[in-house]
Amino acid sequence: MRQVTVELGVRSYPVYIGGDLLGSEQMLARHLDSRQVLVVTNTTVGPLYLKRVMGALAACETHSLTIPDGEIYKTLDVMNDIVTELLKRRFNRDAALLALGGGVVGDVTGFAAAVYQRGIRYLQLPTTLLAQVDSAVGGKTAVNHELGKNMIGAFHQPAAVISDTATLATLPPREFSAGLAEVIKYGLIRDPEFFAWLEQNMDELMQREGDALEQAIYQSCLNKAAVVAEDEQEAGVRAILNLGHTFGHAIETALNYREWLHGEAVAVGMLMAADLSRRLGWLQADVPERLKALLRRAKLPVAPPPAVDARRMRELMKVDKKARSGGLRLVLLQDLGRAVVTPDYGEAHLKETLERFAAGQAEVQ
Amino acid sequence: MRQVTVELGVRSYPVYIGGDLLGSEQMLARHLDSRQVLVVTNTTVGPLYLKRVMGALAACETHSLTIPDGEIYKTLDVMNDIVTELLKRRFNRDAALLALGGGVVGDVTGFAAAVYQRGIRYLQLPTTLLAQVDSAVGGKTAVNHELGKNMIGAFHQPAAVISDTATLATLPPREFSAGLAEVIKYGLIRDPEFFAWLEQNMDELMQREGDALEQAIYQSCLNKAAVVAEDEQEAGVRAILNLGHTFGHAIETALNYREWLHGEAVAVGMLMAADLSRRLGWLQADVPERLKALLRRAKLPVAPPPAVDARRMRELMKVDKKARSGGLRLVLLQDLGRAVVTPDYGEAHLKETLERFAAGQAEVQ
Repeated sequence: MRQVTVELGVRSYPVYIGGDLLGSEQMLARHLDSRQVLVVTNTTVGPLYLKRVMGALAACETHSLTIPDGEIYKTLDVMNDIVTELLKRRFNRDAALLALGGGVVGDVTGFAAAVYQRGIRYLQLPTTLLAQVDSAVGGKTAVNHELGKNMIGAFHQPAAVISDTATLATLPPREFSAGLAEVIKYGLIRDPEFFAWLEQNMDELMQREGDALEQAIYQSCLNKAAVVAEDEQEAGVRAILNLGHTFGHAIETALNYREWLHGEAVAVGMLMAADLSRRLGWLQADVPERLKALLRRAKLPVAPPPAVDARRMRELMKVDKKARSGGLRLVLLQDLGRAVVTPDYGEAHLKETLERFAAGQAEVQ
Repeated sequence: MRQVTVELGVRSYPVYIGGDLLGSEQMLARHLDSRQVLVVTNTTVGPLYLKRVMGALAACETHSLTIPDGEIYKTLDVMNDIVTELLKRRFNRDAALLALGGGVVGDVTGFAAAVYQRGIRYLQLPTTLLAQVDSAVGGKTAVNHELGKNMIGAFHQPAAVISDTATLATLPPREFSAGLAEVIKYGLIRDPEFFAWLEQNMDELMQREGDALEQAIYQSCLNKAAVVAEDEQEAGVRAILNLGHTFGHAIETALNYREWLHGEAVAVGMLMAADLSRRLGWLQADVPERLKALLRRAKLPVAPPPAVDARRMRELMKVDKKARSGGLRLVLLQDLGRAVVTPDYGEAHLKETLERFAAGQAEVQ
């Protein structure tokens, strides 16, 4: 087992990464001096792991709530269902929530913990690669609104993250690959050595070999923890974690958030950001090429779906949440491992990248 | 005009108290470098003051949203309506909300600001005495759940509080008195000189004389700011602000939150807390007597409604939100101006107080 600490003063917390951690009574007890615990999971993950987690919580007053599986349930209504359950059980401010599942379960449970009686403790037990390397770490919680994703939320750090790598064995291949997109992201934005390591170990990762997985998750969490420690509430540097996300969200929106997974859209978005960075003369041509090769080995797409053309994509990028006053800012690369957030890329260069990738002519996976 | 600063490091903010502040373009502009502003008000306050506020915001991109008046609209749905309006207007993270109204408008608008895109700026423009001396200051935001009041919320400090005392002229007498209950509270819990000042100036306050009002609001905000600065998230001393509230909530719950105003229930609750404190030998007998006389001059009730008996009241106190693990804690007085939060009052003494006040035999206003 490995451990990363997210350093945030009094809100610091550990991220544990290893095999078969879900059933560890000791580990759970260490972070749950609370008497009352509500485990929130979904209809896919619950049947696989809930019993084991509940067994490890025998010393607490424990209940569970199973929500439907899927992004469309990341809503204020489901958050309210969690609150209703807490109130029915007469859970007080000392109670704790436990999020057992992927990003949706983690985000909606974390948000419920952020607002129940103005904030209670919660633990993240992520069971997808994406959640283990990204969404479960850093305290971003949210639900979707019909007019926008993650529009209602809070920064609320968990008391601990327990990432059991054994749960990844049951993950569908596409979801596993989608998680790898965020892993690759850390190499691109701030860790060139990790990028090289990924090039050397992608085959082992795709085989889901335990040691390689643990190393990749550990290194991802180290990078994420460093960024979050520097800028908890995304006032500055934390925005580099959104590399590829503005392009990606445009793709997801064009597809009505169906068909493509978030990580798949981010993969293409990162490649587009790298392409734009190369056009600006910031990146050597080999970096986008290396990235493309790596994404392919991870079975990730390298171009938007043919239905999304350049103009539509530019339109959709305008309404991105990250768009602050004064022009669309993008996360770009000034070198492999050096990301910047900037509005200074020139509309003409952006247009070139969009037309290169989103004209229906671009090479599709 | 007077000014109090709530000292919270980078989240510090001013509370302005004075006549005719709502139309001050300068004052609003100082705290709204944001381009986009949404003013939230209700159907009672809007017709009186919205035009003036909108006029003072001519330099910003300003919109308004009017919600229905009443505690039953302090819901997740109304909070979501505010978010919908923000998204329809394409408001970004630099946008600001302005809460123009009493406690309900302030609480629901503040909560919307706390969670919209994980937190945006907001200003409180309280128009009731209760909001000016209590709910608008200190960053507690919340909405109600069908199973409990204020069960969903966040600590989110405003960027400024602008209390226009001129707005109190239109306040119905019962609401004005209800606000006075919280004013008296500050004297009881930590400011004996202020308590004496209130005894000397209650007639002027009941006449709503400008100077007396401004002084009372200023002194209340000074006390509230000091407590909040010491304990922003109610981990300790802030709980003394709940003097009378556990008794009061029991009364409000018994009445289904109808008939009595919050401040009226708190008035009785404070008197019951003083009575219990006297039974414990902590208070001289004259303090509850002085309090009772002061509450009467403020036209506040001094006993629960006859329908609420002692046993029912004890039952309802058990489920109070402030009830942490390990027994019901109450805010009691160890002296005039010295409050403590303690579970050590003895069930027998509590029973005596409850039976003295809530047996249908107690003297009613």
